[in-house]
Amino acid sequence: MRIIIHGVGAIGGVVGAALALSGQEVLGIARGRMLDAIRDKGIALVSVNGRQETSFPCVAHPSEIDFRPDDIVLLCVKGQDSVAALEALRAAGLRDQALFCCQNGVVNERVALRYFPNVHGVTVMLPGTYIEPGEVITHGAPCYGMFETGRVPGGTDAADLALKQALERANIACFPSEAVMESKYGKLLLNLGNTVDALLPQGAEQAPFTKRLVAEAKTVLRAAGIVWRDVGMDDPRRNEFMRVVPLEGAARAGSSTRQSLARGAGSVETDYLNGEIALLGRLHGVPAPLNARMAVLAAELVAAGKGAGGMSVEELEAALVA
Amino acid sequence: MRIIIHGVGAIGGVVGAALALSGQEVLGIARGRMLDAIRDKGIALVSVNGRQETSFPCVAHPSEIDFRPDDIVLLCVKGQDSVAALEALRAAGLRDQALFCCQNGVVNERVALRYFPNVHGVTVMLPGTYIEPGEVITHGAPCYGMFETGRVPGGTDAADLALKQALERANIACFPSEAVMESKYGKLLLNLGNTVDALLPQGAEQAPFTKRLVAEAKTVLRAAGIVWRDVGMDDPRRNEFMRVVPLEGAARAGSSTRQSLARGAGSVETDYLNGEIALLGRLHGVPAPLNARMAVLAAELVAAGKGAGGMSVEELEAALVA
Repeated sequence: MRIIIHGVGAIGGVVGAALALSGQEVLGIARGRMLDAIRDKGIALVSVNGRQETSFPCVAHPSEIDFRPDDIVLLCVKGQDSVAALEALRAAGLRDQALFCCQNGVVNERVALRYFPNVHGVTVMLPGTYIEPGEVITHGAPCYGMFETGRVPGGTDAADLALKQALERANIACFPSEAVMESKYGKLLLNLGNTVDALLPQGAEQAPFTKRLVAEAKTVLRAAGIVWRDVGMDDPRRNEFMRVVPLEGAARAGSSTRQSLARGAGSVETDYLNGEIALLGRLHGVPAPLNARMAVLAAELVAAGKGAGGMSVEELEAALVA
Repeated sequence: MRIIIHGVGAIGGVVGAALALSGQEVLGIARGRMLDAIRDKGIALVSVNGRQETSFPCVAHPSEIDFRPDDIVLLCVKGQDSVAALEALRAAGLRDQALFCCQNGVVNERVALRYFPNVHGVTVMLPGTYIEPGEVITHGAPCYGMFETGRVPGGTDAADLALKQALERANIACFPSEAVMESKYGKLLLNLGNTVDALLPQGAEQAPFTKRLVAEAKTVLRAAGIVWRDVGMDDPRRNEFMRVVPLEGAARAGSSTRQSLARGAGSVETDYLNGEIALLGRLHGVPAPLNARMAVLAAELVAAGKGAGGMSVEELEAALVA
C-alpha cells in the first residue's frame, strides 16, 4: 500500500514526514516552495521527539502519477482547492481507490462523492504548523496527532483499518468510526474560532467572540437535525493520546486560517467553516448573522492583502454588530 | 432596477439581448471573444422574430461594477465556474441583492447560499444557441423561453415578481413558484441526455441511452426522498408559451454540453448533471453506475481534447457496460 498525500502543508507535511520516518511508502503532491524544498533537501519534522530529517518523493501534479489499485489518497488541500484537486485526480486515472478527506469543514466528502465512489472522512486533530518550506512542526504529544476516520455516508471498511495501521506505526493515533461525520461537525464547531484567531492580534482575548459563534452554530445544527460529537478536550481520548504541548524554540503558529494569512495565501477556508453555518442557517430558516459576518470579514481581509492580526478587539466587535 | 447578467453565453446572451431590445437596463459580465464582440458591434438575437441587433454594456469582471441596492443578478455561468463567480461578486461588493441561479443542475443554489442570503433558483427552458461571438439564437416560440423562479429553500418574494415583469416585457415567460427546486430536479432529468447528445454523432439515436439514464436517476431520487416535477413537453405551459420551432438558416446546435465541446471549452457540466445522480446514489446507497460512467466519459472526452460527436453508438454502449 502506498499513501499519496495531495497537499503537503501543515497536516500533509506532518503525516508524510511521520510515515516516511517509520519506513512506509509515501508519495506527495506538493506545489511551489514546499515542492522545491522537499526535492532539494527533504523535509524536517519538529516534534516532542526533536527535529528529525527525512524525505519522500513528491510530484507537482497528479498527472505525474501511475496510480495503483491499492493506493490510498489523503486529500489535504484546503477546501477551496478541492474541486480542482479532485478533477485532476480523476483525469490522472484515480477511480475506485479509497480517498480520505483530511480537511476541515464538512463539505469536502460530499464534493468528492461526485467524482469518486470510495470516499472517507477524516477528523484531524493535529496541531501542525507550516511556515517555512521544508519544515513542519507538530505540538501533539505523546502522539503527533489523533485521527478519526470512516466511510461516507457511514460505516468503515478495510481501507480505514489499513490507514489506522499505517498511521499508528507513524505515531499518529487513529480511530475508525461508524459515523465519522458526527465528529467532523464537532470539529467544525472548534474551527469557528479560526477566523477570530486570524483577525485579532496574538494574545487578544478570543473566547468571548468564539463562544458567541459556537452558540449560534449549535442552534443552527439543531434546527438542521445534524448530530455532532465533541472532539475538544472533553473527548477522553484527547488526554491519553494527544495533548498540545510546548516545544522549545518552536512557537505554535495558531489556527490554519491564521497560518494561511501569515504565508500570504490568496484565500482562506472561512467559507467552509463559518460559511457552512451561514449556509445551513439560510437553508433551515435560522439566522446566523455572526457566522455570516465572519465569512465576509475574512474575504475582505484577503482581498485587502492584509496579514493576520490586523483587527483590534473593538474593531471586530463593531464589525460583528454592523 | 438593473439586471446584471453574469455569463453572457447562450442563455445569458438571449436574455440580455431580449431585455435590451425591450428597452430595459442590462449590464453584462462577459469574457473572451463574446466580450470583445459585444463591445465592438453589439449582439444579434436570432429568433422567430428574425434577426434583431442591439447592445448592452458589458464588463469583464464584477470588480468593475458599482452595485446598487436594487440590482438583480442572474448567474448564468456554467456550474463549474460558480464558486469563482460568487467569490468575485462578493469581493466586488454584492451583499443582500437577489441572486438568481439560471444554471442547469441543482447544486448552484446551495453553493450560492454559502455566500449570499438572498438566493433564487431558476428553471430555464430556453433552446438557446451560442456558437459565434456576438450572436445568439433562440428556437423558442411564441416566447423566447420559459422560466420558473423562486426563493431557495422555498417561497417567492418581490424579486421574483420584479424579474417576472422584466422578462415578460422581453418576451420570456416567467412563473414564480413556491417550490422551484422541484422543477429544477425535473429539468435535471431532462439534462441527463446532454452528454449522450455531446458524445454521439448528430442524428444518432439517443433515446435508448437517455431512457436508461433517466430510469436510473428516478430510482436514486426516490431513494433520496427528492420530489421532482416534470418540465418537459408534458408540462401544459410548454405548448402554450414555448415550443421549439425550426428557424430558417439557424440550425439548433444541440445541448449545452454539446455546444461547450463544439466551442472547445475546457470543461463540461456533466459532473453537475449525471454526476449529481452518481453523488446522490452514493449518499443514499443506491448504485447509479450508468450516470457515474457518463461523468467519467465526459471528463475523458474533454481531457483528450476531442470535439462533440466522437463516439459511435457501439462505442458508447461498450463504455457503459465496462
